[in-house]
Order: sequence, then C-alpha cells, then structure tokens
Amino acid sequence: MPSVSTMSPAEAREMIRNNEWMKPTAGVANGYTQANLVVLPKELAFEFLLFCQRNPKPCPVLDVTEPGSWVPTLVAPEADLRVDLPKYRIYRNGELTEERTDILDLWNERMVGFLLGCSFTFEYALINNGIPVRHIEENRNVPMYKTNIPCVKAGRFEGPMVVSMRPIPEKDVVRAVQVTSRFPSVHGAPFHIGNPDRIGIKDIHKPDFGDPVTIREGEIPVFWACGVTPQAVAMLVKPEIMITHAPGHMFITDLRDEQFGVL
Amino acid sequence: MPSVSTMSPAEAREMIRNNEWMKPTAGVANGYTQANLVVLPKELAFEFLLFCQRNPKPCPVLDVTEPGSWVPTLVAPEADLRVDLPKYRIYRNGELTEERTDILDLWNERMVGFLLGCSFTFEYALINNGIPVRHIEENRNVPMYKTNIPCVKAGRFEGPMVVSMRPIPEKDVVRAVQVTSRFPSVHGAPFHIGNPDRIGIKDIHKPDFGDPVTIREGEIPVFWACGVTPQAVAMLVKPEIMITHAPGHMFITDLRDEQFGVL
Repeated sequence: MPSVSTMSPAEAREMIRNNEWMKPTAGVANGYTQANLVVLPKELAFEFLLFCQRNPKPCPVLDVTEPGSWVPTLVAPEADLRVDLPKYRIYRNGELTEERTDILDLWNERMVGFLLGCSFTFEYALINNGIPVRHIEENRNVPMYKTNIPCVKAGRFEGPMVVSMRPIPEKDVVRAVQVTSRFPSVHGAPFHIGNPDRIGIKDIHKPDFGDPVTIREGEIPVFWACGVTPQAVAMLVKPEIMITHAPGHMFITDLRDEQFGVL
Repeated sequence: MPSVSTMSPAEAREMIRNNEWMKPTAGVANGYTQANLVVLPKELAFEFLLFCQRNPKPCPVLDVTEPGSWVPTLVAPEADLRVDLPKYRIYRNGELTEERTDILDLWNERMVGFLLGCSFTFEYALINNGIPVRHIEENRNVPMYKTNIPCVKAGRFEGPMVVSMRPIPEKDVVRAVQVTSRFPSVHGAPFHIGNPDRIGIKDIHKPDFGDPVTIREGEIPVFWACGVTPQAVAMLVKPEIMITHAPGHMFITDLRDEQFGVL
C-alpha cells in the first residue's frame, strides 16, 4: 500500500470505502482538493443552492448531484458519496442523532449531495508561500467564531456567518490576501482583517467551534468565511434529515488544489 | 436629464421603466455591471441553477430571485425585473412569440428571475488595458459560434457551448488572459485561443449569431464562453414560458464592474 499522502484520490477513496481509513483526511492524497459534504432532500435543494449562490464566500459550491444520484460528476465521476467519506453525521430535525461510516441505507431518490470547498486548499497555498498556519503548527482544530454579520437569506435558509481565524505576521498579511484571492471557490480572500470586535467576536481566545491558537506579538488576526456556515444555517431549518461529513473527515476529489486557482 | 452614460443605475432604470429608453443599454450608466436576464417557472429553477453552477464560464450567475419575487436583492435591491429592462422576449414552448417593454402581466408567483454576467464587463477591462475590441470598433454585434463542446448536463438542461470571438493582437494575448481572468463572474478567462477548428468552428467568417468582424494580420482569434449558451440550452427544453432580455437590452445593476474583480 502506498503512503496515504502520495495516494491517488481513487486509491484513497477505495481505502476509505473499505473502512481501512476511518480517521480525518488531512494529509491524505496531498495536493488534491478535499470537500465538505451536505446531503439534503430535494425539497430543500433549490433553496439551499440559492443560499450558497448568494453567499459564495462561506458556501463555495464545487459540485451538486442530480436528485437521487450519489455521483459527483464534476469533481469525481467514479466516486460514491454514500461510502467514500470516512465518517458521516446524521441530523434529524436539526439534532445530531448518529455517526457512521456509510449512508447506503439512508440514500434514496430524494437525496441531493452538495460538495463545498474547504479551507485545506488555501492553507496549503499559504504554507507554500512560507506563511505560517498556526493551528497546523500547534496540531489543533482551526478556531471558528459566529459573527454578527448575517448571511444573505434564501427561502428558509438564514443565519450568521461563521468565520475561521489564522494569526498572520504583519509582514505577510498582504501576501496572504493575494494568495487566497486566487481561490474564490474555496472561500477566497479574507472576510475581515484585524478587528474581531467589529464583526461581533467578543473574545478571540474563546472560539465558538474548534480550538484557540496562540496569537504572537506582531501578528494580526485574519478571518476567512468558514464552511461550517452552511451546515449551521441548514440545521436551523431543522430538515427531517440532513447528512454531513464528520468534522475533518472530508471527501477527496479528483481535482488538484491548483486547478481551482483563477489566475 | 443627465447624459445617459453618467447616470446612476437607479436613474437609468427609472428612465427605462418610464419607457423613455427602449434601445440597447451599451454605454448607459458606464462602469456599472449589466446582466442577461432569464425568467423561468420555479419547476425548472433548480435544474437551471444547477446547470449554471456546473457551467460557470458560459453561465455566471450574478443573482437569482426568490420564486415569485421580481427583486434582485443582491445586485439591485430597489429594482423591478418586470419593468426595468428596455425590451423583453417571450418564448412559449421554445418559440419566440413576442417582444415587449414590460412583463407585468406575465409575472406570477411561479416566476424565478436569473441574472447572468455579460461580456460588457470584461470588454470594458480590455479597453482600459489598451486592448482593442474589434466589434465595438466596427460598431457590430460580437460574433458568436456554436462549438462542438458539450456543456455539463443538469437534469433536462443540456447542449453545446456557445462562444464569442474577439481578434486580439499577438502581443496582447497574454495580457487579455490576465485581465479577463480577474472576472470569473462575468465569463472570466478565455475558453480557447487560436484554433477555431479544434472547437468545431468551420468558418470563422460565418458566425452562428451576431456579425462577422475583421481579423487582421498578426491577430489571434480568442474565444470566450458566451451568455447566449444558457438561453440556447433552456430553449431546447421548450419550457411552457421563458422570458429573456432582448439582445443588447440588458438589466443595469447597482454594482460597478470593478467590484466583480477577484483580485
């Protein structure tokens, strides 16, 4: 078996499908884009897609399946969204009821799968540019915060934007904006630089999700729109059923991160 | 009355709403983004939005209304899509049946309006970079061609991509790629450079839509995905009713072209 980091996406998905990898996917099939999963019944699909279209920074859509199909034809035409993620979360009426390693028996002809870009892609680009990513250095989850900035409403979907924070050395802030601007389909440029209070964050050391990280002297907190937003917003609608990836247990696409660069 | 080119978008839309301007909108409210309109019944809205999401180069979505609403809240929250375009086309079962200056009596609670980015935005950027835009110089319609490249299918929506062509001096081709890459939400970077035959175009001097333009010695034909694509594809579905802008008679948004630049 090749090292997980140098596996092809197809090899990695096969390993995952066979339940030989039930852990987070960071570092698996390095250089290939990983995605957040949201599965909703088709009755909610138009409104949710509209919500994503109106809020592209927190909800960058990479692929959407035909109703009933488990195949993400744009980003991995050989994949099966029912078995190719290492861990799923099942929400019923807005409550987490279960975690499991496949969703074969839950998928029916009403299901629509949404794959949304994730920050792994731009973090890789930051690191390649010599810009430190603190939560990776400290082996923690990225700190995430609810803001006081409302998303643009779409049908029943509404709620505040969630952001992630990375402390960036002052000298690297401009470059961090440039580097991440290249990737609008995976959250893109920062949402806010410098003043947590301005976007409704009371205590930078107490994130709403994930872990706090060290902010050093001479570093600026830089905030990016976060892919937790659409899940949090969908939960508020309390759909009869909603399925997502478990945190960190992402879907691995056939596309390389660099292919999402617009320039 | 101020000159049409320096009017605000709101002033321009009011003039249009009062039927004081029933001509093409090129040059009206200069610097503000203009958009293509497609109105479809909500039964087709999810599939059409999915089609656009899968084919972002020909179908760059700027805004979508809530079903029944005529207000494009993202790009012009004070506007009314039923009256704010100078000319509309009505298609019934895929056939053009009528042109009119408002669609007040056709709009009902099933209607969903889609605003799609148009090439005016990137042409303005090309001109600002000193790159000639031949059909503007020659006061013609841009030449457009059906290609042999299929769009990615979504539900009932499928068909070939339509491209527009601009002859670019060899020395400016790289810059033309850079300049238009900044604007992924208005067709973005070229789709093809140099070989019409390769994308199924038999005779560059006989466009399928629009007018032929002069290609000079030392110029390369450069092709961009064209906003005619989604209309052409929607027509094939023969919806009971579909409403579009009349060619060149666009919707004027409140947003400046530069606001769509990703970098």
